[in-house]
Amino acid sequence: MLAIAGDSASGKTTLTKGLVEALGPERITAICVDDYHRYDRTERKELPFTPLHPECNYIDIMEQHLQLLALGHPILKPIYNHSDGTLERPVLVEPREFVIIEGLLPLYTKLSRACFDATVYLDPPEQIRRKWKVARDTQKRGYTEEQVLADLEKREPESEEFIRPQRADANIVVRFSPIEERGESDADPPSATVLLRPTIPHPDLSKIVGEDVRTALHLKLLRDDDGKPVDALHIHSYAEPEITRKVEEAIWDELGIKEPVPDSLGALDGERSEPLALTQLILLFHMIQAEQAQVS
Amino acid sequence: MLAIAGDSASGKTTLTKGLVEALGPERITAICVDDYHRYDRTERKELPFTPLHPECNYIDIMEQHLQLLALGHPILKPIYNHSDGTLERPVLVEPREFVIIEGLLPLYTKLSRACFDATVYLDPPEQIRRKWKVARDTQKRGYTEEQVLADLEKREPESEEFIRPQRADANIVVRFSPIEERGESDADPPSATVLLRPTIPHPDLSKIVGEDVRTALHLKLLRDDDGKPVDALHIHSYAEPEITRKVEEAIWDELGIKEPVPDSLGALDGERSEPLALTQLILLFHMIQAEQAQVS
Repeated sequence: MLAIAGDSASGKTTLTKGLVEALGPERITAICVDDYHRYDRTERKELPFTPLHPECNYIDIMEQHLQLLALGHPILKPIYNHSDGTLERPVLVEPREFVIIEGLLPLYTKLSRACFDATVYLDPPEQIRRKWKVARDTQKRGYTEEQVLADLEKREPESEEFIRPQRADANIVVRFSPIEERGESDADPPSATVLLRPTIPHPDLSKIVGEDVRTALHLKLLRDDDGKPVDALHIHSYAEPEITRKVEEAIWDELGIKEPVPDSLGALDGERSEPLALTQLILLFHMIQAEQAQVS
Repeated sequence: MLAIAGDSASGKTTLTKGLVEALGPERITAICVDDYHRYDRTERKELPFTPLHPECNYIDIMEQHLQLLALGHPILKPIYNHSDGTLERPVLVEPREFVIIEGLLPLYTKLSRACFDATVYLDPPEQIRRKWKVARDTQKRGYTEEQVLADLEKREPESEEFIRPQRADANIVVRFSPIEERGESDADPPSATVLLRPTIPHPDLSKIVGEDVRTALHLKLLRDDDGKPVDALHIHSYAEPEITRKVEEAIWDELGIKEPVPDSLGALDGERSEPLALTQLILLFHMIQAEQAQVS
């Protein structure tokens, strides 16, 4: 069971979609915990907080449902309709072989975190996330740009108080962003920085990511914001597919399974993004490793 | 935690209402498990079964929620709107000091039965239940008499297969009905026959219900349909309130609590029904006894 946490429009759905495709939708249950909203859009207008606030969500029920799914039990999951902002009849969700939980607050409580085999926090730079949010909410959710910007403003204190602290509790922190030191700008496809915290066993990248692949990606030992040691994997937006392919296969080999590396990884607006593909592969590694541990 | 099972219009709501009133709504959570319908009214039109069929309900989720409530945890309960037949947004239910679960199928599975301290099955004669159902569904649910009768016809095989077998699993079976041997007819207010099965500890009625109260109620040792010994308490529709009051107080005394017998019991269409009052008191006895056992 994998958690993907992050603020609104931080890339959770894109990341999840590639994992579902790679494993096959029949083997995976992917749900969004933003459906645990306590109030509908009309009710929220009267209230002093945004949907990011834990009090605006059934956090205890979310915890309960995560525990049930982790134990292999079905749940009757609430449904929040993002297009009209209403709460609808719940649906039956039965956990398959793999479960992905994405949303705003899946890592908010200790009990919820304890349900996961691996936890991810998506951490794009704020100005990029804002760009993504404006694009999505104007194109898909029927808002004007002014409305989205006002909403971002209103949400900022709760983002700071409740969403961003989850970064500290993730095993993996992913930042898609241009790397300024390399002269990349917002116009370039994003590179990725993947922080691999030594809180779960990662693939042994120090052996795999050497000088020979440096033009595409490199691994750097550094101190995290809190001073703790962490591996930072940088994957360049213009990484050569032949090189990342070699790295992907080396990671995949550690799992000791017969199937080839799924070739659906990295899909982004109809193109293949090498940073996205490799990030998804690392998450896939963790999901399959957890499943192997459970079976054995 | 008390279960009240029975077919549609068998008196579950009336019985429950008096218990809620007696204990005080702030101390009791009463829910109806018919909300666990899997399909709404429109979807059911295409399906070969009625709402009585277990496959027409989320039975496994009902079981799960009963277990959670029995353990003192909250649930996010589905809602079925009886007036328009739609499934609505779920509601948070937190178990209070006492919990009553009423509905068509609360005793259907072994796991669900295991959640209760006492279980009741309402067993009115079929012709009386039909009369009650026609009255309620035409007055409160917008159906014509013809529609209700056709519906009863359609439901009969599933009533037989799924609802009535729950009678065998109840600790208490309650039949409100005129007692023919006493010359009572459908026009009289109903008497009650309460079967007290020796599967849970009942109040010691053999000491309380003697010859001196015979004009109002009497206790009879008999064999149940399945040949097993059972106590049958008959309470006459025209029982004198002074006599039933004495019996009520004797039952109440066994609990050893200070509060007087609640005087809200037996409310039926604005009148007081002695058979209903005494039946409710026996259920109240079981709820309070279970709570005392839990606390001590």
